[in-house]
Amino acid sequence: MAEPLEFRFDFASPYSYFASERIDALAERHGRSVAWKPVLLGAIFKHLGTVPLTRQPGMHDYSIRDFARTARFLGLPFHMPMRFPIATQVPARAYYWLLEQDEALAKRFAHCAFRTYFVDGRDISEPATILNIAAKLEVDPVALSSAIENPAIKDKLRQETDAAIAIGMFGAPWITVDGEPFWGSDRLPQIEKWLETGGF
Amino acid sequence: MAEPLEFRFDFASPYSYFASERIDALAERHGRSVAWKPVLLGAIFKHLGTVPLTRQPGMHDYSIRDFARTARFLGLPFHMPMRFPIATQVPARAYYWLLEQDEALAKRFAHCAFRTYFVDGRDISEPATILNIAAKLEVDPVALSSAIENPAIKDKLRQETDAAIAIGMFGAPWITVDGEPFWGSDRLPQIEKWLETGGF
Repeated sequence: MAEPLEFRFDFASPYSYFASERIDALAERHGRSVAWKPVLLGAIFKHLGTVPLTRQPGMHDYSIRDFARTARFLGLPFHMPMRFPIATQVPARAYYWLLEQDEALAKRFAHCAFRTYFVDGRDISEPATILNIAAKLEVDPVALSSAIENPAIKDKLRQETDAAIAIGMFGAPWITVDGEPFWGSDRLPQIEKWLETGGF
Repeated sequence: MAEPLEFRFDFASPYSYFASERIDALAERHGRSVAWKPVLLGAIFKHLGTVPLTRQPGMHDYSIRDFARTARFLGLPFHMPMRFPIATQVPARAYYWLLEQDEALAKRFAHCAFRTYFVDGRDISEPATILNIAAKLEVDPVALSSAIENPAIKDKLRQETDAAIAIGMFGAPWITVDGEPFWGSDRLPQIEKWLETGGF
């Protein structure tokens, strides 16, 4: 059985949201699964001394335009959130806590979190927003509230972010296929060909 | 008659080379032409206080890998040049001088210059390399040598680079379709859909 693809992302990254809506079906077409690994892109940028695309010199207006246009190109709903970017510790910790119990549930949560931020425009850095999503998925809110502050879960997110830095991740999404790294939702066609051909 | 697409590029940009091999045929499929406009990306970076992708923190190794992989994905020959990046005043000035005489000839020259650098690995910042290309295209080498130092041609390149900065270009290639800007060879599928649908 081939190893899963690794999909590293930050819940506040628009291109990560776009990839999240495509990557599982893409992998499945080639008999592969995907391990989702949220990380803190802010910590990665801090480590490298870089900034988000929208804060790079000259890139703000183009980036905002490209997010919306790329969503339309892919046929995905998208509204630029008022608060952007945001800290994503809360949804990322919730994801890893759910992952310990049920991977399918954790991915349903991740999809909901992305859409709550990038479609409904609600601030997923707020625990209340995450508890709301959890309620819809019939996740126990008391257990989730406590998980978000659980030191072991905090450590897990820190470790995953450190691991992302160690493999050279500098932007999101970052998708690894049998060791081959692909940066950006615009590399999905290359990933598809890579899976089709076993590397090119 | 619709306005031509504008294709702004630097002769030392791998993604510009990839786009140069596709953009005219893509535009023609939709009854459109393309105006090619080489600019000095180094001057744009200096203006913005930025650096090439390969010199951005953490991006060197990934970029080198992505150039070669993207070329294979597109089915284009490519070898990473030993000297990279290079100053591109000489090929850009030669292009604008040829453009005054014959646009088709100027584009043939531009294709040769890109391939000489990114396939044959020869240094197109050197006038001797450019004169060699010109000789193959039956361009008078004496007139070309003098054109490369002609103040009016130097001015033309400066003006085109300033115009690129004025419209917000921060990277290459930069393709404008009826005022809509697209950055990067990975946006060619979006450009194709834009031309098909008249904007989306």
